[in-house]
Amino acid sequence: MPVSFLSQLQHQGRELTVRALDRHLRLGVTGLSGAGKTAFITSLVHQLTQGDNSENLPFFAVVQQQRFLGARLSPQPLSVPRFALEQNLSYLQQEPPQWPPSTVGFSQLNLNLRYKAAEGLRARLQHCSELALEVIDYPGEWLLDLPLLELSYAKWCEFSWQLFARPHRKATAEPFKQALLSADLSLNTPGQLQQLTDAYKALLQQFHQIPGAYLNQPGRVLVPGELAGAPMLQLFPLLPEQLDAAPALAKQLEQHYQSYCQHVIKPFYQRYFARLDRQVILVDCLAALNAGADAVAELGQALKLILQSFQYGPGGLLGRLFKPRIDKVLFAASKADHVTPEQHKALTLLLQQLLQQPLKHSQYQAATSEAMSIAAIRASNSGYVQVDGLAQPCLSGTTMTGKAVTYFPGEVPAAQPDAKLFARHKFEFVDLRPQPWRDNTALPHIRMDHVLQFLLGDKLR
Amino acid sequence: MPVSFLSQLQHQGRELTVRALDRHLRLGVTGLSGAGKTAFITSLVHQLTQGDNSENLPFFAVVQQQRFLGARLSPQPLSVPRFALEQNLSYLQQEPPQWPPSTVGFSQLNLNLRYKAAEGLRARLQHCSELALEVIDYPGEWLLDLPLLELSYAKWCEFSWQLFARPHRKATAEPFKQALLSADLSLNTPGQLQQLTDAYKALLQQFHQIPGAYLNQPGRVLVPGELAGAPMLQLFPLLPEQLDAAPALAKQLEQHYQSYCQHVIKPFYQRYFARLDRQVILVDCLAALNAGADAVAELGQALKLILQSFQYGPGGLLGRLFKPRIDKVLFAASKADHVTPEQHKALTLLLQQLLQQPLKHSQYQAATSEAMSIAAIRASNSGYVQVDGLAQPCLSGTTMTGKAVTYFPGEVPAAQPDAKLFARHKFEFVDLRPQPWRDNTALPHIRMDHVLQFLLGDKLR
Repeated sequence: MPVSFLSQLQHQGRELTVRALDRHLRLGVTGLSGAGKTAFITSLVHQLTQGDNSENLPFFAVVQQQRFLGARLSPQPLSVPRFALEQNLSYLQQEPPQWPPSTVGFSQLNLNLRYKAAEGLRARLQHCSELALEVIDYPGEWLLDLPLLELSYAKWCEFSWQLFARPHRKATAEPFKQALLSADLSLNTPGQLQQLTDAYKALLQQFHQIPGAYLNQPGRVLVPGELAGAPMLQLFPLLPEQLDAAPALAKQLEQHYQSYCQHVIKPFYQRYFARLDRQVILVDCLAALNAGADAVAELGQALKLILQSFQYGPGGLLGRLFKPRIDKVLFAASKADHVTPEQHKALTLLLQQLLQQPLKHSQYQAATSEAMSIAAIRASNSGYVQVDGLAQPCLSGTTMTGKAVTYFPGEVPAAQPDAKLFARHKFEFVDLRPQPWRDNTALPHIRMDHVLQFLLGDKLR
Repeated sequence: MPVSFLSQLQHQGRELTVRALDRHLRLGVTGLSGAGKTAFITSLVHQLTQGDNSENLPFFAVVQQQRFLGARLSPQPLSVPRFALEQNLSYLQQEPPQWPPSTVGFSQLNLNLRYKAAEGLRARLQHCSELALEVIDYPGEWLLDLPLLELSYAKWCEFSWQLFARPHRKATAEPFKQALLSADLSLNTPGQLQQLTDAYKALLQQFHQIPGAYLNQPGRVLVPGELAGAPMLQLFPLLPEQLDAAPALAKQLEQHYQSYCQHVIKPFYQRYFARLDRQVILVDCLAALNAGADAVAELGQALKLILQSFQYGPGGLLGRLFKPRIDKVLFAASKADHVTPEQHKALTLLLQQLLQQPLKHSQYQAATSEAMSIAAIRASNSGYVQVDGLAQPCLSGTTMTGKAVTYFPGEVPAAQPDAKLFARHKFEFVDLRPQPWRDNTALPHIRMDHVLQFLLGDKLR
């Protein structure tokens, strides 16, 4: 009986610990479409579940100190979409290996991490500690809708048409502009409203295909899901000069805009975002460089808008909506394996510079943030070739069309290049296939150990 | 000032009346896929908004008595999908005319009806009365999930495999049965679970294509929407003999099944169904006759399950979930324009017989129900041809391939035919295109005035 009693006490102790000592962490993972969310989560979970190998994760302290006892997938809410881990791993094992497909919408994966505490009460009382980790995947585009809460419909129209006047968007936006100009907006019939909405939706779909056109609002007009047909999705920006000329239509669009804020944006922040403890934001800087000056400028602008979600000081918008609790934000420049290692520093600096402007303004930034360059699943090997007697860094890998290549992908600018540089130099970072990989071996990566240490290290002491 | 005060009082009086005198009606419209929901709602709304014509609606008392002042579309929740009325009407005006496309999911359309009260307090106090009508469109398949709430997972497996053994389903179900039989279910790996789920989903999709295979459960496995990837949708019926042989897998599926009941079925009844006042259920008996004996039998079974949603007596399942308030249910045999008029009575009797068995058992049926044969949008003209000196009833119309035809479509059995009749007679009711129709004219119909009188007549006195 005493033994059973003791075991029961230990069990109760553990239950209590989970709740009282904050043994529970919800980690959000996001990024704009194509930034590599799926590969990131697949790798993060695989490193943790396979990851008691200190050679593979040298900077993850709990592993390095041989205190990590392993991680296992754990049950999760049956009614919430589950992150398709096994399916994603199977893509990497195909012949030839494939990148897992990108996803739309929300998904979740739960893990239970076991480790020996290094110090303190826990180390003395328990031979084994646990941390429940929930990984939450959602599209970065949802964060781009947040600023709409603080704009009026009229201001949003101004903002949109300034954006559509940029060189990489202008020609694409022209037919929609002409449709607005040629419509008799005073008619304001349901048919006209729907027609213009359809035209704007088509425009958003075209923008979505343009490299570097990151800022497509409102997100749900592009991907309506079960809201398809709701009047609030009849929403498009009038030309600013039309607002006064067509007051009835402008008023109706303003109502739809407000309804969208109320029924789409606020519920996302209150139901999902408010419950996150930490956040990873993946950014593909190389694709923006490939796409040119306008793309890099728009990436900076999109990051500025995204950062607003982490600025919840006194009196701020988010503080009025809910009590935020995100205390750490990691900005990760993804696909660092597509440049040679000595360029990683420049890649990180470029990302930091893109973030700098907005960070300066965020007087009340509540979370600790960090920027680094990573590759969740490394697709290349790096080395040197002798060129004119000098060791020149290079990568070897396989292109998406299956060609084995050894090459120098070029330099990464450590700061946002000016238009002149883009005029005389075209960045061409080549996409690579994943390397062949067998199950039960570690997934090759760059700096996922740093990522794990930053996100989880303090919770695994 | 007195005038303004009086007008204010009248306004307040009207506001009060809307709420206190029950001037608000939520009408649900449903039917199994293909039964004609879209055409029905399009016609119902069009008859009301265009419908002060007593020749077109002779049995709709408020119109006949010249008390109807008209109906107008009214604002509705901006965040709820809106029924695509204008788009559906435009299909009817195409050259050649088309049936409006069928929909999946939920939509709503709001109307405001104005009329002169015939009697009572209202007639004396107000020169004009109003009724706010909300028309709610949802798939009949959602009602087919209700009975799952009262079945255990094991009972559902039994039910499913009895259904899959019927002649019109057996061959289609065979590959899935073999997949279950050849799987080593004791493995119970996530990969196996997903593989069998995918196979069951494919089977449901095949069933969905079979005329007369109405009963496909659970509905959301077929159309997951934003629930895609939720573990509870990993759900399929094990062979009854496998339940004991694979207890771990059976337990897991039972959990998914319970989660589905909890997170899909109950919320639908609580959030949507509970708020309906009246309900129309459309049934395409002719398609079932065309498809044969098994189809008619399964239609009867599906109607039996659907009727359970309207049986909420003391101690019943629905009474425990919420306080139901539906007080009138109309069962309408749709597409009556595809048979000659003297067959309508038989069509109604056939529908009544299909409903009879379950109605007998519904001791506590709380709602008044009625069955009738209708055509929401009439596609044919009826007349007579002389055959051997006798006047023979006939239809004229245009087939879906554009051929103008005058023909006798055959008799409708007034009771469920036995297998012998099906063995020697094949029903072949031909699908017709809608007739050319110009906007601003009444939509041709059969008995929509009876429908309106049954559903709304008592509220427009």
